[in-house]
Amino acid sequence: MKSNKKEKLGVLIPGMGAVASTFICGVIACNKGLAKPIGSMSQMGSIRLGKRTEDRSPIIKDFAPLADLDNLAFGGWDIADENVYEISIRSEVLDKNLLNDLKSDLESINVYKAVFDEKFVRRLSGNWIKNGKNKMDLAEQVMDDIKHFNKTTGATSNVMIWCGSTEVYMEPSDVHSSLSKFEEGLKNNHPDISPSMIYAYAAIKLGIPYANGAPNLSADITALEELANQTKTPLAGKDFKTGQTLMKTILAPGLKARQLGISGWFSTNILGNRDGEVLDDPDAFKTKEESKLSVLDTILEPERNPDLYNDLYHKVRINYYPPRGDDKEGWDNIDIFGWLEYPMQIKVDFLCRDSILAAPIVLDLVLFLDLAKRSDMSGIQEWLSFYFKSPMCSPDLEPEHDLFVQLAKLKNTLRHIMGEDLITHLGLDYYKS
Amino acid sequence: MKSNKKEKLGVLIPGMGAVASTFICGVIACNKGLAKPIGSMSQMGSIRLGKRTEDRSPIIKDFAPLADLDNLAFGGWDIADENVYEISIRSEVLDKNLLNDLKSDLESINVYKAVFDEKFVRRLSGNWIKNGKNKMDLAEQVMDDIKHFNKTTGATSNVMIWCGSTEVYMEPSDVHSSLSKFEEGLKNNHPDISPSMIYAYAAIKLGIPYANGAPNLSADITALEELANQTKTPLAGKDFKTGQTLMKTILAPGLKARQLGISGWFSTNILGNRDGEVLDDPDAFKTKEESKLSVLDTILEPERNPDLYNDLYHKVRINYYPPRGDDKEGWDNIDIFGWLEYPMQIKVDFLCRDSILAAPIVLDLVLFLDLAKRSDMSGIQEWLSFYFKSPMCSPDLEPEHDLFVQLAKLKNTLRHIMGEDLITHLGLDYYKS
Amino acid sequence: MKSNKKEKLGVLIPGMGAVASTFICGVIACNKGLAKPIGSMSQMGSIRLGKRTEDRSPIIKDFAPLADLDNLAFGGWDIADENVYEISIRSEVLDKNLLNDLKSDLESINVYKAVFDEKFVRRLSGNWIKNGKNKMDLAEQVMDDIKHFNKTTGATSNVMIWCGSTEVYMEPSDVHSSLSKFEEGLKNNHPDISPSMIYAYAAIKLGIPYANGAPNLSADITALEELANQTKTPLAGKDFKTGQTLMKTILAPGLKARQLGISGWFSTNILGNRDGEVLDDPDAFKTKEESKLSVLDTILEPERNPDLYNDLYHKVRINYYPPRGDDKEGWDNIDIFGWLEYPMQIKVDFLCRDSILAAPIVLDLVLFLDLAKRSDMSGIQEWLSFYFKSPMCSPDLEPEHDLFVQLAKLKNTLRHIMGEDLITHLGLDYYKS
Amino acid sequence: MKSNKKEKLGVLIPGMGAVASTFICGVIACNKGLAKPIGSMSQMGSIRLGKRTEDRSPIIKDFAPLADLDNLAFGGWDIADENVYEISIRSEVLDKNLLNDLKSDLESINVYKAVFDEKFVRRLSGNWIKNGKNKMDLAEQVMDDIKHFNKTTGATSNVMIWCGSTEVYMEPSDVHSSLSKFEEGLKNNHPDISPSMIYAYAAIKLGIPYANGAPNLSADITALEELANQTKTPLAGKDFKTGQTLMKTILAPGLKARQLGISGWFSTNILGNRDGEVLDDPDAFKTKEESKLSVLDTILEPERNPDLYNDLYHKVRINYYPPRGDDKEGWDNIDIFGWLEYPMQIKVDFLCRDSILAAPIVLDLVLFLDLAKRSDMSGIQEWLSFYFKSPMCSPDLEPEHDLFVQLAKLKNTLRHIMGEDLITHLGLDYYKS
Repeated sequence: MKSNKKEKLGVLIPGMGAVASTFICGVIACNKGLAKPIGSMSQMGSIRLGKRTEDRSPIIKDFAPLADLDNLAFGGWDIADENVYEISIRSEVLDKNLLNDLKSDLESINVYKAVFDEKFVRRLSGNWIKNGKNKMDLAEQVMDDIKHFNKTTGATSNVMIWCGSTEVYMEPSDVHSSLSKFEEGLKNNHPDISPSMIYAYAAIKLGIPYANGAPNLSADITALEELANQTKTPLAGKDFKTGQTLMKTILAPGLKARQLGISGWFSTNILGNRDGEVLDDPDAFKTKEESKLSVLDTILEPERNPDLYNDLYHKVRINYYPPRGDDKEGWDNIDIFGWLEYPMQIKVDFLCRDSILAAPIVLDLVLFLDLAKRSDMSGIQEWLSFYFKSPMCSPDLEPEHDLFVQLAKLKNTLRHIMGEDLITHLGLDYYKS
Repeated sequence: MKSNKKEKLGVLIPGMGAVASTFICGVIACNKGLAKPIGSMSQMGSIRLGKRTEDRSPIIKDFAPLADLDNLAFGGWDIADENVYEISIRSEVLDKNLLNDLKSDLESINVYKAVFDEKFVRRLSGNWIKNGKNKMDLAEQVMDDIKHFNKTTGATSNVMIWCGSTEVYMEPSDVHSSLSKFEEGLKNNHPDISPSMIYAYAAIKLGIPYANGAPNLSADITALEELANQTKTPLAGKDFKTGQTLMKTILAPGLKARQLGISGWFSTNILGNRDGEVLDDPDAFKTKEESKLSVLDTILEPERNPDLYNDLYHKVRINYYPPRGDDKEGWDNIDIFGWLEYPMQIKVDFLCRDSILAAPIVLDLVLFLDLAKRSDMSGIQEWLSFYFKSPMCSPDLEPEHDLFVQLAKLKNTLRHIMGEDLITHLGLDYYKS
Repeated sequence: MKSNKKEKLGVLIPGMGAVASTFICGVIACNKGLAKPIGSMSQMGSIRLGKRTEDRSPIIKDFAPLADLDNLAFGGWDIADENVYEISIRSEVLDKNLLNDLKSDLESINVYKAVFDEKFVRRLSGNWIKNGKNKMDLAEQVMDDIKHFNKTTGATSNVMIWCGSTEVYMEPSDVHSSLSKFEEGLKNNHPDISPSMIYAYAAIKLGIPYANGAPNLSADITALEELANQTKTPLAGKDFKTGQTLMKTILAPGLKARQLGISGWFSTNILGNRDGEVLDDPDAFKTKEESKLSVLDTILEPERNPDLYNDLYHKVRINYYPPRGDDKEGWDNIDIFGWLEYPMQIKVDFLCRDSILAAPIVLDLVLFLDLAKRSDMSGIQEWLSFYFKSPMCSPDLEPEHDLFVQLAKLKNTLRHIMGEDLITHLGLDYYKS
Repeated sequence: MKSNKKEKLGVLIPGMGAVASTFICGVIACNKGLAKPIGSMSQMGSIRLGKRTEDRSPIIKDFAPLADLDNLAFGGWDIADENVYEISIRSEVLDKNLLNDLKSDLESINVYKAVFDEKFVRRLSGNWIKNGKNKMDLAEQVMDDIKHFNKTTGATSNVMIWCGSTEVYMEPSDVHSSLSKFEEGLKNNHPDISPSMIYAYAAIKLGIPYANGAPNLSADITALEELANQTKTPLAGKDFKTGQTLMKTILAPGLKARQLGISGWFSTNILGNRDGEVLDDPDAFKTKEESKLSVLDTILEPERNPDLYNDLYHKVRINYYPPRGDDKEGWDNIDIFGWLEYPMQIKVDFLCRDSILAAPIVLDLVLFLDLAKRSDMSGIQEWLSFYFKSPMCSPDLEPEHDLFVQLAKLKNTLRHIMGEDLITHLGLDYYKS
């Protein structure tokens, strides 16, 4: 493996809002010893190696050659002419006293003019926008920004991670079906090429690993997978798995493990940040809803358990509710049934914080994608499904949504990369039989 | 493997209350085509074999040579002189119309006089109690009952499963430390030998697999493990993992997977059945509380994640609340923290039914313990940890409480028994790298 | 007062669905001694008379000369050709064993063909519909039905109560502004005259007290108030106050009493009966939403408490969720603030039953409207606001939504009718000052 | 009425903990224009006068001649040698930035040595304690403190309000039965005279109105009522009605208004402040539990509604749970039943803040008791029941717990004091009949 643990890794973020700024502030605060990267598996999580009786469980960052936190450099693009300190204050996620301690670091971060198109995110508008003669020209401007960023910061490698708003719902179409058609479309300003695709193209073209934190297509099209294979670039996505969906992919595998039937699952959300505002647009909501609805099917496999899951009525609602700001609340009612079909109910109320849950995901993805790149793993990284609501996977497979299968996959992949035995939890050898 | 799929398997149950009768009624109803054994992994659950693309996922009962439901025969012991129909009516778990359809089957089941000692279950008293000159004599009477049962029903093999009330808290003492001391104690009426130990002794002595659905020690003592090794008998226990603790071992692994910290976990329960009444006795509650409190530690491993779990304040309360009868409600408040230690909260309200959740566990344990016996697996069956709040395990190991590790262990054990490849979820071979 | 306690009171119900049938079954069951009219203030509630130390608190039915339950006769109109037994079975509200005990009584109740127009309730269609040459003709057919009903049953007086579905949203228009325009409109088939208005016209024309259990206008128009004054007819409405809104008008007065501020109130509902289906039509939902949203304003009086309630964000959602049938669940999150504006939260989860909560309201309204008629009270009966989400009131007043003010109004009105002292709760005379 | 609106009113507080300091800080902050006294009826609440159409609803402080907030002076007693700034910081209720703005004001407040006896509050101990040759001597020292306080601050009148911890459970005994026996007991150090009684004696002896914010007896004994009559002193108590019990006295009247039956009410609390610690002592909990359990009976009157409330199972649990500090959470499950006894459930989760809810109650009681004194109202002030969990009342009456009856009583008393018409909500005159 090509190690770059001592070199600067440049993190490039289209969409410098609440999530991106919370991520950046947190890493800087950790580097200053002011905070801990709670929620990051790479920094806090241990991985068991060998037999249970060997008692070997290092922290993952001490096991795999990940980039160090103090070797990260940050930059991005946004539609507002604000620096990261101003963004953080406006986002009202982190305590102002902490932000003031980080002020000069935050103000010095490059925020480039964004590629933006109102047709894809209708509730927002901006004044810090790139102009270009066509979409290919915009992609080249992004590539120029990256080169400028690397020169300025001394970064020798990069990861790009989309933290922008959800774009309106779109099905893949002809222009997405091959690299040549896509590049043609860039030059011709094809209307089905969204800003998030332009960023993804720019990154992958340069061989920079790319992850998509929102549910829109972005790199999840044949054209960009083709490009990723050409440039040996790892890809991951889509849609960070935070609050309610995270909870759903914890609970559903548990209910299924016990073969409890489910007749209905009603999920409602209240949230008051920009995300909530954007999702008040029904077309943006449709993108998100598809992402949120899909998770139960591949976990529950109704085709294998028709008596348990065939009649499941699943409904997801998102409600813009300004009193809460970045705080989010997800309420779930789950109607289950057990032995002889007797009904029971589960209610879950999750008072969470959107950006606080997303920030450590950004960190882990940056570090693991960089590791993948250096380990010569390219294309879709299914082992990172753990972090996504709509995991990308090989077209002949179903995406894996069960958080615990995702976890086993992630940890066994790390063991595999580092040449350790895989864990099966069989454990018969601890016993005399 | 010695197959007995076509022979009668006799299920022996000390403690014929709500759980036992709900289990028995359910199996009979399924055999009559009136109901489905929802919640039973052996009957409803599928197991993936081979690679995902092979699409091989049989139902477990079609994969492993388990006893058929219509080859089960039932019998047990109780302190009240009631038949199983009367018990079922009094328990108020199942619909009376269904019970009336099963009436003659239920009335014909043998309920033998119980071994009982008020010192161990203070809130109950009974009139259907064995007398004996000492505890060894009582054990022998139990063995005679078993022989009588097998003769009556034609059963050629057996499994015994304790479904009685929780006995008062006790630490293992000298009389439990070896088989010879224990047998001496049986003859001398040693006060530390409880009724549940007498049943366990009787079963294990006859080579009958034994499981303990309550949290008291019962077979979880050195003396009886020694006997199990002599008689090649599989053991499993303790304390069926149903409502709130089931939920806890689903959620805690999920929170830990995401490296979310936990500062407090408050669990309260309201329940109105006989179980609630028994647990109103503080000494019985202590046994249960120990069982319920232990689950978080080995899941969260605070020693490996001190920043996340060292200060966790865990409190469990059980409240006798008659308005609900057998319906139970568990309310949990979980105080968690994420990125930079920002706090969040999760509330879970589980409106469950005690016996409905326990009955399919009884069924699976009966079938899997019988399979273990025929597969020559003896002693503690750690792969059945999945079903217990306080899983028994080898003394040099920590018990495994994570439901998903337990599930992997159970399924990989079945794969191993049947000679199939173990599953690691690595899955790299689906991808070009 | 003209007493008719010993004569038959005929209850006429347009819309014989779950609510109507649950009401009718309940009254018949009570008359047979099989059940109790829980939830009915007139039958179960006591009323304090005089000073506390007098200890006079009769049950209301023993205080005011209300009709006896066994002097009620029932009839109605529906769009389906079903008898009340069939309706009750289909509605799945009451236990089948009970319904079978009432079967012959239920089957003998007249269900006349309905006045129906799909434009007003788009999700339903029926096959038991009146034809007429114009809307006046339909009104006359309804009056003929009433006469037929009274002849058949021997009823000497009547009350009509709308229990039909919510009609689409409509503002009062010119045709509703005077009786002469309205009668002209009936003859000309004016499109703004809905079926519920036709029933109301028929009843009021005959001097029959009329109540509206749904949120649509029906009798809440100037034309029909004019007619009510001519015919000396009491009116009441609109929209039975059951589940979530009932809870809201209990909680909001409590929070206001304590001068706690409210920044947000989010209410969501899941329900699976025909009501849920009808409200899936956005235009029907709008009628309901207006009704549900209005209640907070007049309770909280933001104009008098701008610091506390000016910024209140109030959102109400109704979700059709079939797994629950007639069972309904309302979840509320209330964001409040106290001393120095520190925030707090209240969550309420109400697992209720729609028809079970509505049925006793129907009973009380029937008896109190009949009492009003016999007491020569005509026009809008504001003292019955207690039962409605959108209480009708004099045009120069705000409707009163506070459940406890409504209760004081209702009870002091009864005291007034019966010549008792009004209660102020001053109570200084119990003390030496 | 003797007006002292322009003179200084001295507020004397035994027990300067979280509640007292939050109250004091808030009043000072309001006087500086930094905050608003949310939750205080006297400052924020309006009172309707005359007919609805008159539109007269002044804020209460503009209607009744209450002391102005900037004429209040503060002092108290505590067992720790801390000033009010230090207490506020330790209590962790209010924001540190705010406290720093108030620092010099807070530091200058007199905190006198406390009368303290560990037997009555076992979980606490202190180092700032009065010594005296007997309890009468201690009472005289308290009176001396008051005189010193008035000289220092220029206060010309006073109110005393107990904000100390809950003392252990005690029934009134012979020494409490008359003033002469009580004064004898003070001199003889009778063990049944608790510190809170000594403070109450000192205040009432000086004619200073006294309120008790905790559930222990304090002034609720015949001896001190006798003294209050002698010295023309108003009394109020016991136990500030904040979180869960407040909610209970809002909901129960609502359910009763609708004649909904209640089969069970389970209330559990988690709290992590000093209050929680003190209530971990079972004898202190008993005092609190009695106070919390009593509220339902007089609201629901099971003797008048046996079908609805006779079988109500009411259970209250308080759990010390440190992770929350002063934040408190009350979870209620209410099992209700309606029409034909069909069951329904209500769950309420109240995430509240103890001191934030109590502080405005302290303020209102101070101002209303001072008004009572100047209005020559002495003895128990039943009209202030609104603020208490266990309202004191005349021995021949039941206490009134219904929040809305309490509210009517309070407001009609204010109207009565100021010579306005009482409000009955009859309102018939708005209508033509």
